[in-house]
Amino acid sequence: MRIAVDGYGGDNAPSEVVKGVLAALEEDKSIEILLTGKAEELSALAGEHNRLFIRDAREVISCEEVPTLAVRTKKGSSLVVALDAVAAGEADGLVSAGSTGAVLIGATLKIGRVKGVERPALAPALPTVKGGTVILCDCGANVDCRPSYLVGFARMAVAYQKGVFGLNDPRVGLLNNGAEETKGNAFAVECHQLLKAAEGMNFIGNVEARDILSGEVDVVVADGFDGNVALKSAEGTANAVFSLLKEGIYKGGLRAKLGALLLKPVFKGLKRTLDYNEHGGAAFLGLKKPVVKAHGSSKAKSICGAILQVRDMIAGEVSERLAKDIQND
Amino acid sequence: MRIAVDGYGGDNAPSEVVKGVLAALEEDKSIEILLTGKAEELSALAGEHNRLFIRDAREVISCEEVPTLAVRTKKGSSLVVALDAVAAGEADGLVSAGSTGAVLIGATLKIGRVKGVERPALAPALPTVKGGTVILCDCGANVDCRPSYLVGFARMAVAYQKGVFGLNDPRVGLLNNGAEETKGNAFAVECHQLLKAAEGMNFIGNVEARDILSGEVDVVVADGFDGNVALKSAEGTANAVFSLLKEGIYKGGLRAKLGALLLKPVFKGLKRTLDYNEHGGAAFLGLKKPVVKAHGSSKAKSICGAILQVRDMIAGEVSERLAKDIQND
Repeated sequence: MRIAVDGYGGDNAPSEVVKGVLAALEEDKSIEILLTGKAEELSALAGEHNRLFIRDAREVISCEEVPTLAVRTKKGSSLVVALDAVAAGEADGLVSAGSTGAVLIGATLKIGRVKGVERPALAPALPTVKGGTVILCDCGANVDCRPSYLVGFARMAVAYQKGVFGLNDPRVGLLNNGAEETKGNAFAVECHQLLKAAEGMNFIGNVEARDILSGEVDVVVADGFDGNVALKSAEGTANAVFSLLKEGIYKGGLRAKLGALLLKPVFKGLKRTLDYNEHGGAAFLGLKKPVVKAHGSSKAKSICGAILQVRDMIAGEVSERLAKDIQND
Repeated sequence: MRIAVDGYGGDNAPSEVVKGVLAALEEDKSIEILLTGKAEELSALAGEHNRLFIRDAREVISCEEVPTLAVRTKKGSSLVVALDAVAAGEADGLVSAGSTGAVLIGATLKIGRVKGVERPALAPALPTVKGGTVILCDCGANVDCRPSYLVGFARMAVAYQKGVFGLNDPRVGLLNNGAEETKGNAFAVECHQLLKAAEGMNFIGNVEARDILSGEVDVVVADGFDGNVALKSAEGTANAVFSLLKEGIYKGGLRAKLGALLLKPVFKGLKRTLDYNEHGGAAFLGLKKPVVKAHGSSKAKSICGAILQVRDMIAGEVSERLAKDIQND
């Protein structure tokens, strides 16, 4: 198995990307990595490694560029060169921490959609309070959706759950502002009926945003705009809690500081559980080959996590499962 | 100043409502309360009080009923009797922990909108990490919005910030999936332009859901569906953090338990800060008289908080400010 990695994507590229690549190669002796970017710089950072292949790419796509234009004109960029390698069958999946827009558009253009997929979608895997994982799909790739898209998002996330997390019959919920069937805006009401009617789908109904992490649902589908709001609100709240906690400890005197010291391992574990970036990135589902978009601020650990995530998606045959599920639809 | 309280609204009515009413009367010696519901039960619970007026109402509207129908047919319910008192000028504002739908529809019908308000909206006041307050408007009263509604939501929340929290020129942001002006779905893009063009509005642009609590914005406007997703996702995440923390402490042995004991005051303070229900409820803005919808599960403390919140809205002349702002528009 070979995984392409965009060596110049993200705020901390290339050094953290290279560190993450080396960590992944160390972690899994069976994978190979095709790393794209300025060859001399990457070689200097990485040193010699018999499962690391560096492919020269002189350009870099920044987050400020218009994605479609950048992907079309910068054919020699680290991202496009990596995508071309996947498209040509030289790699089985891709990781990039670069511009989200460019990764989404580039991957859709170059790698292509699984037959029957209307719209690929971004799907982070989030930790639940019961120790499991819930897939939130879409989280921002499609901000203006038709109701039918959401049935596709559900199929894609179900294939992901089955292939990577080993669930047999994932429970699918629709993000909504109330649990009752008639709740929601006109769009949500229509989505509900389509999901309910979808063949072979374990649709459990509407899910309120407060229950996404409850562990009672395995896949939550949403319009990309709403999914993004849910995801970022969760992120912001987790950050706010930690920031308020820190302040409370700071103001709480010696007693609080001692307490915090004793609880350090617990806090660390909690932060690790909640930070979905630690576990990799958001899977970009619906393409013929797995793609993971790591956070722009990824450090080595997240890059390594994202590579292992793509590995799991390849091994779990997520794209193949999806193709089969859609065909049987 | 007299405040009407729906004595039979909420899961813990009437006993917790009565306790909350008594606490509010104790807390502020200048207010009077008009409490509606079964008079003999309320009297037995409350005892004698010279600033408490009980008005008999034999019916109760439950959360299972269709709101429009319930408000129209149950004219003798605790909610409708309380609303009628406000409409008749016998009270200056209202608190109910009952069915959200019934409160919204009943208040709009009976109390009426401020002239120029297209749609009243639900607006909780949330704590920011900087110790301030941010108003999120709308949070679920209007799930299918026109872009123009959001300009109204902004006007309403600005009047609320000015009147109750004393801000001079509240910063208004639009909930969106990215900070740049062109970001968002078609709806958000249109809202952005309208808000930008709105006379006398301190519009600071798009705000991502992760930044709602940042303290960098005083009013965040959103379609009721998205606002609801943001609010409930924040709520769910805060709950998840506490639940994971509890589990970590439980599993962390003696060291963690000792740490937790030392940090107890900090945890308590944090929970209090984050639980917006402790501070009252969600204001229902845009009506001629202030209405606060307390959480259905409200205990005495939240009811008391909601009453003091309505008091502040009356004293801060939130409805009058809004009427003036809209007239000048």
